Amino acid sequence: MFERLKSLWVIGTTVGALAFLVPSLAIAQSDPLPSWNDTAPKAAIVEFVDKVSKEGSPDFVPEPERIAVFDNDGTLWIEQPMYVQLAFALDRVKAEAPSHPEWATTQPFQAVLEGDMKALTAAGEKGLLELIMATHAGMTTAQFEKIASEWIATARDPRFKKPYTELVYQPMLELLAYLRANGFKTFIVSGGGIEFMRPWTEKVYGVPPEQVVGSSIKTKFAMKDGAPTLFRLPEVNFIDDKAGKPVGIQEHIGRRPIAAFGNSDGDLEMLQWTTLAEGPRFGLIVHHTDAEREYAYDRKSEFGHLDLALDAAAINKWTVVDMKADWKQIFPGN
Amino acid sequence: MFERLKSLWVIGTTVGALAFLVPSLAIAQSDPLPSWNDTAPKAAIVEFVDKVSKEGSPDFVPEPERIAVFDNDGTLWIEQPMYVQLAFALDRVKAEAPSHPEWATTQPFQAVLEGDMKALTAAGEKGLLELIMATHAGMTTAQFEKIASEWIATARDPRFKKPYTELVYQPMLELLAYLRANGFKTFIVSGGGIEFMRPWTEKVYGVPPEQVVGSSIKTKFAMKDGAPTLFRLPEVNFIDDKAGKPVGIQEHIGRRPIAAFGNSDGDLEMLQWTTLAEGPRFGLIVHHTDAEREYAYDRKSEFGHLDLALDAAAINKWTVVDMKADWKQIFPGN
Repeated sequence: MFERLKSLWVIGTTVGALAFLVPSLAIAQSDPLPSWNDTAPKAAIVEFVDKVSKEGSPDFVPEPERIAVFDNDGTLWIEQPMYVQLAFALDRVKAEAPSHPEWATTQPFQAVLEGDMKALTAAGEKGLLELIMATHAGMTTAQFEKIASEWIATARDPRFKKPYTELVYQPMLELLAYLRANGFKTFIVSGGGIEFMRPWTEKVYGVPPEQVVGSSIKTKFAMKDGAPTLFRLPEVNFIDDKAGKPVGIQEHIGRRPIAAFGNSDGDLEMLQWTTLAEGPRFGLIVHHTDAEREYAYDRKSEFGHLDLALDAAAINKWTVVDMKADWKQIFPGN
Repeated sequence: MFERLKSLWVIGTTVGALAFLVPSLAIAQSDPLPSWNDTAPKAAIVEFVDKVSKEGSPDFVPEPERIAVFDNDGTLWIEQPMYVQLAFALDRVKAEAPSHPEWATTQPFQAVLEGDMKALTAAGEKGLLELIMATHAGMTTAQFEKIASEWIATARDPRFKKPYTELVYQPMLELLAYLRANGFKTFIVSGGGIEFMRPWTEKVYGVPPEQVVGSSIKTKFAMKDGAPTLFRLPEVNFIDDKAGKPVGIQEHIGRRPIAAFGNSDGDLEMLQWTTLAEGPRFGLIVHHTDAEREYAYDRKSEFGHLDLALDAAAINKWTVVDMKADWKQIFPGN
């Protein structure tokens, strides 16, 4: 109601002639993607958005069906030298160690406390899962939200000495906003923990918690002393990665996206599900090629796992962003 | 962009004086809840909506946090003489029977084909689950959406001889629209199947697929002849009922609702999770008291399962709607 009154006030105090000037001014002034160089990826994005959002276009897509899905790690923010959520888990092990004297002599905790990355790597996926469960479960959802929020506000990336939420990609922030301004609903579909992302995605990406899809552990509802609680259990609920991404998309969104953005083989199935269907479709892969401004890792990199996705991009005509060549700027405010 | 141009055109052709008249006219003209009698529930709803949506109110809630959750069966539409989704499953068994000659002599299918409700009831929850799996799994998500859409368009309720989508509660349709007009985001949180509801909730309730939470079976992604598919497996994924509802809410929405609407003990935990927290909260229970216009079933009814929820309503000051006394009209268009 307040918003409506405010708009009416603006209307009432603006003469008709001035109002008519606004659209042309706005169009002339603003490049919606200023951090993108004028290379092929930017042109492909603008062409796609124009054709699906202009009424009368043969490829017009009604607004409710303009669903765009974004991977997070390596697509919207930095994922080197390790996934940010892993840095969180390691910090949590250190913070919780005083209450767990047994960790000093138990792997993989000992490796974390001694900073022994070799032993940590040797612990493999099983060790990683143990770390995640020890640091992400055993508390209420409200408690975990507080822990994650406090960490993200204070932790710093070791190379750039900045909060991780400032190591998001400026061109992708512009892309998110540009899509929304053209009637898209933007979702995050990440292998990362859904509750690890939700406390900050709205502020950082403009993506509200209900539009975040991610991996999760099981939770259990119980009344405790008359207060309802959701307790986080040390049990995997859903892994939102690889072939899990289309499953997560269906479960949470319930419609097939028309645009998908990823950066690794973990996004292959999401890109296939999104683009290999009738009607206008858009797939994009962020290729990390800029060791100077960020990182460079290719299909050969064990970390990147980009082999299948790059092959599929060539076959399916997905847009591949060369970060070094296509992005004027990597992070905000530089 | 088109929408923006259109608004600017309206602005340009409207004189300031006329624009200033619009808000008062709109307020004077429209009762947002015309099918509600002027009894306590309507007053409680309007008071709650006013206090959370008026800026400057001590109970003001920012728009993104205005989350309202609605049960479906018995809260938004009819659930007698059986859940609509059960009617769907029974019809599907009959439709599929020619391809399953073994069903003629296998329970619970035989009971369905012979219309033997006693034998069907005797099959219990296990039998019900068998019926659900036989009729809801073994196909792609796209195939199931087609089947559910075709059924909902053609099936008729046995008593009212109308499509089930016309046996929704007019006062609740008004309530959904009223909440949305005041900045709420409305979600369905139902024990029913998420993919059974999604094909029609947007058209009927104005609730898009991504705002529907429900029970689900597992799905599996696979490439088939170069085309990505999601295949529905005969395996329970999630039961969105009772203590499962707060879990489903957290998983899908990721924030705690401030208003919840239900009609049975299956909604108790959702109402607790929503209302037993700080800040302004609203809980409402639809009590079916009108045998003439719809159905009457009370806390004693085995079908209703309303014992715990009515007790909790008294303790927690949830609003209880007496359908006979509080609703001027039950269904649309009557």
